[in-house]
Amino acid sequence: MRIAIAQLDLTIGAFDANLELMRSAVDEARRGRAELVVFSELATTGYPPGDLLERADFVDRNLEQLDRVAALSDDALGIVVGFVDRNPSGAGKGLFNSAALCVGGRPVARTRKCLLPTYDVFDEARHFEPGGPARPLLFRGLRLGVSVCEDVWADPDLDGRSLYHRDPVIELVEGGAELLVNISASPFELGKAAQRRDLVRRYAAQSGRFFVYANQVGGNDELVFDGHSIIVDPTGRVVVRGRDFAPDLLVYDLEVGAAEGAPGELREVAGSTEEEAVRALELGLGDYVRKTGFESVVLGLSGGVDSALTAAVAARALGPDRVLGVAMPSRYSSAGSLADAELLAANLGISFCVIPIDGIFQAYLDDLAPTFAGAAPDVTEENIQARIRGNILMALSNKLGRLVLTTGNKSELAVGYATLYGDMAGGLAVISDVPKTMVYRIARHLNRRGEVIPQSTLDKPPSAELRPGQTDQDSLPPYDVLDRVVEGYVERCRSVEQLVAEGLERATVERVVALIDRAEYKRRQAAPGIKLTAKAFGIGRRYPIVADYTGLHRSRG
Amino acid sequence: MRIAIAQLDLTIGAFDANLELMRSAVDEARRGRAELVVFSELATTGYPPGDLLERADFVDRNLEQLDRVAALSDDALGIVVGFVDRNPSGAGKGLFNSAALCVGGRPVARTRKCLLPTYDVFDEARHFEPGGPARPLLFRGLRLGVSVCEDVWADPDLDGRSLYHRDPVIELVEGGAELLVNISASPFELGKAAQRRDLVRRYAAQSGRFFVYANQVGGNDELVFDGHSIIVDPTGRVVVRGRDFAPDLLVYDLEVGAAEGAPGELREVAGSTEEEAVRALELGLGDYVRKTGFESVVLGLSGGVDSALTAAVAARALGPDRVLGVAMPSRYSSAGSLADAELLAANLGISFCVIPIDGIFQAYLDDLAPTFAGAAPDVTEENIQARIRGNILMALSNKLGRLVLTTGNKSELAVGYATLYGDMAGGLAVISDVPKTMVYRIARHLNRRGEVIPQSTLDKPPSAELRPGQTDQDSLPPYDVLDRVVEGYVERCRSVEQLVAEGLERATVERVVALIDRAEYKRRQAAPGIKLTAKAFGIGRRYPIVADYTGLHRSRG
Repeated sequence: MRIAIAQLDLTIGAFDANLELMRSAVDEARRGRAELVVFSELATTGYPPGDLLERADFVDRNLEQLDRVAALSDDALGIVVGFVDRNPSGAGKGLFNSAALCVGGRPVARTRKCLLPTYDVFDEARHFEPGGPARPLLFRGLRLGVSVCEDVWADPDLDGRSLYHRDPVIELVEGGAELLVNISASPFELGKAAQRRDLVRRYAAQSGRFFVYANQVGGNDELVFDGHSIIVDPTGRVVVRGRDFAPDLLVYDLEVGAAEGAPGELREVAGSTEEEAVRALELGLGDYVRKTGFESVVLGLSGGVDSALTAAVAARALGPDRVLGVAMPSRYSSAGSLADAELLAANLGISFCVIPIDGIFQAYLDDLAPTFAGAAPDVTEENIQARIRGNILMALSNKLGRLVLTTGNKSELAVGYATLYGDMAGGLAVISDVPKTMVYRIARHLNRRGEVIPQSTLDKPPSAELRPGQTDQDSLPPYDVLDRVVEGYVERCRSVEQLVAEGLERATVERVVALIDRAEYKRRQAAPGIKLTAKAFGIGRRYPIVADYTGLHRSRG
Repeated sequence: MRIAIAQLDLTIGAFDANLELMRSAVDEARRGRAELVVFSELATTGYPPGDLLERADFVDRNLEQLDRVAALSDDALGIVVGFVDRNPSGAGKGLFNSAALCVGGRPVARTRKCLLPTYDVFDEARHFEPGGPARPLLFRGLRLGVSVCEDVWADPDLDGRSLYHRDPVIELVEGGAELLVNISASPFELGKAAQRRDLVRRYAAQSGRFFVYANQVGGNDELVFDGHSIIVDPTGRVVVRGRDFAPDLLVYDLEVGAAEGAPGELREVAGSTEEEAVRALELGLGDYVRKTGFESVVLGLSGGVDSALTAAVAARALGPDRVLGVAMPSRYSSAGSLADAELLAANLGISFCVIPIDGIFQAYLDDLAPTFAGAAPDVTEENIQARIRGNILMALSNKLGRLVLTTGNKSELAVGYATLYGDMAGGLAVISDVPKTMVYRIARHLNRRGEVIPQSTLDKPPSAELRPGQTDQDSLPPYDVLDRVVEGYVERCRSVEQLVAEGLERATVERVVALIDRAEYKRRQAAPGIKLTAKAFGIGRRYPIVADYTGLHRSRG
């Protein structure tokens, strides 16, 4: 059986454009004499469609799309494709997340996703009814065990808990499946490709079946799909591996029932965390810009490492000629900052301009003076400056048609060390899931073959430069400590007590945790950011704003 | 059996403060010689706790809180209270949404929510495992049929679909329940109290049992809980009705097994849609301000009806002395606008100040001139003005410690007729779920006993006043038409074709729908707004930003 995996970068709802991508993939697979082409989960709509699933017209279009995809099949070439099916029963959610087997130009069999992820960024129980017992589909006398994404994640987690009461892959194997296929739209996080690979390897080895795992690729809002489709042979060996962070078409000959598989195509993939991170950001940024119809971006360059990394990612993703960096110095900006921004722009080859903000700042101070009535300067004046910069960048966006990128990192966003409507203003928060310590690691990684990000940017102490002589460490603990608290509190949901038990200083933990809790209102209005870690701020973390968090953390009486 | 319903306004995570409210309620019930006090769903934590449920320390505190509430019971007074229970099994979600019966100072029996809402604003399948078969709890020889919130919503909806495969109330009745109790945290929307009442009445009449329905009250982020707890007798008659939009304690004597109940306390509740809306906004605003620790608010007064209504709601919710209105005229503001703003402030008795923005605006224009290089004025210059106003209001917020209220209505937010970081800047979007036509209706309602909102504000054509002679209807269809499209497209998920079939003009529908789709990125960064309708923008509507919506609406080829 010659199998093709079509790992495509689909746009949600772009039915015609997506069909063209699918048609090209089928044509290429046909030229490679494939007998079965496997597309990813919900390939008829693109994933995740969100509440578009509540629109009957959207579901209708998806069903028409299924027919159009099915029409690409013939008697020589079958297709497995994910789509949204209606639930004919009058009880339960109205839809199924389904896979169709198409042969001879039409869908001939279908199966349904059994395990519906409803944690972190996933909302599938919101829209879908779980499928009943999983049964293989018959394709040319072969029993295909087709499952959908989460269906391979029945495994207990590290705490020994399984979220589910059944294992659809085992159901398929017990139902006689001779070849296992999973169609996925599994979003990227650091280290997740290895997790997925291990799951698939274990199922293949345990069942003694080949396992074909097809994943979506591309960026959709906060999520990046890394592709990285694989085929594993019955010994548990990966015999085919697709590109990471790029579309791919993989063709492989497998002999159903054989004890092992011949070596196939193994694409080179990112070899380090830093490389994985930068490629994910690049794809996420590039697809966000392209799919929202922008052609270019603009961002503020402060001379600091966050805006430098953001600009570097943008230049890689879009080409330097589509990136405009703007330095907006004030009375508190050091000469070095402007020089660093200028040097960065030169290193990257991006456009660059300088718009000083001091005249505008003075106009605010003058016009607010009667109302402020001699009150001492405080964070108010700092925020005014940040918001002037936000206003200028948005004006450039409006006038020049460029998308504004925000440049805040995860550590800042966690503790609210950022100005709403100021440096938080923009369409995409490129590095908002990158902790500050990782920002430096990635920046050094980008400099490994020569300076991209100016060395002086990496060497100087981080500062917002919103008052004389300010540095981040006036207000915050050192970033290596801060990032440990953020990781423990946000990603692992550890309590203050547990973090102290892990060796962190109590006063620091209490201070940082209070800042994190208090900044919830800022994050609620933050630009969407690209998810990199197991727990990003954004759609996957749903904390109330109105809550007495001090009540949660106070020592119990 | 003398029953008390404790309809309380709880703050999420405020364990100590909430316990004091519960203690007072129990004391009062005891003075009234009640035998059983019924609290609302998840009363140990406040509802909705969101992803705080993922924190083990939060769940622990809730279990301690259960013990503290149970300690308020004794042999003469039982308590039913909602809490979060852990799932002892190693499979499925780790928590149950539960109710405990407490007697003699401790929890003696518990039951679990069976139906988990996972639509609109609800995410319960994210955190909870559904309960098994519902069984009555034994209280002094009486079989109490206790269910939790959604458990009474098994009924098929208007389309004839039930989201669920079982009916827990019927399970309880078939299991011998002699008295039905439901503990709820059912958020407000216009008309929902009547829906709830009808559900409870039908169960009571069908089963021939008394039905005690206890609901939470108060605002939590976007949600307002309207209280409106009831007791229905076995004939289906409402014999007790609690306050709407305010805490209450209701005591009622019922004879289990009797064919009907004696008349009890029937509180007066809002008698019109406009009154319901204004009371919901008042409670939502008041609780948001109070629970986030603010004491006062500031908002821009344009002289238009949206900011006028917002100010009026704020003055009612907080008292006029806690409200500061700021007029920020520009070169495009009419003299009438400033006069209307001033008159409104005088009518309401709120503080008022004027900060002209023209000097600051000119400073932007001057400093951007080199970069704009003679490009013609466009929406850029309009947005700059809106963002200057946003910056000024945020500066006043920072300097004076006042929460900024935004004043945009639902119609504007739908079509993106608002400036991100400009008039959209603020902590709470008070009327963002009020369509413009309803803004006028509510404003006239507030004026029914004398002018509150200036008549000239109601009479003049709406305008953003961001360029000479501008009116809203330069860019948008008349608001009565716009609101019909918004209601059909957003609330009822109708397609373009269906809206045309309902009698709306195709060109208008296509134009409005395109605007709604395109504004998704703005709404993603909008301040939380108070939900009034069946479908508010916010946490209950989860549309992708990156999607080819034109693909969805284009006529099919």
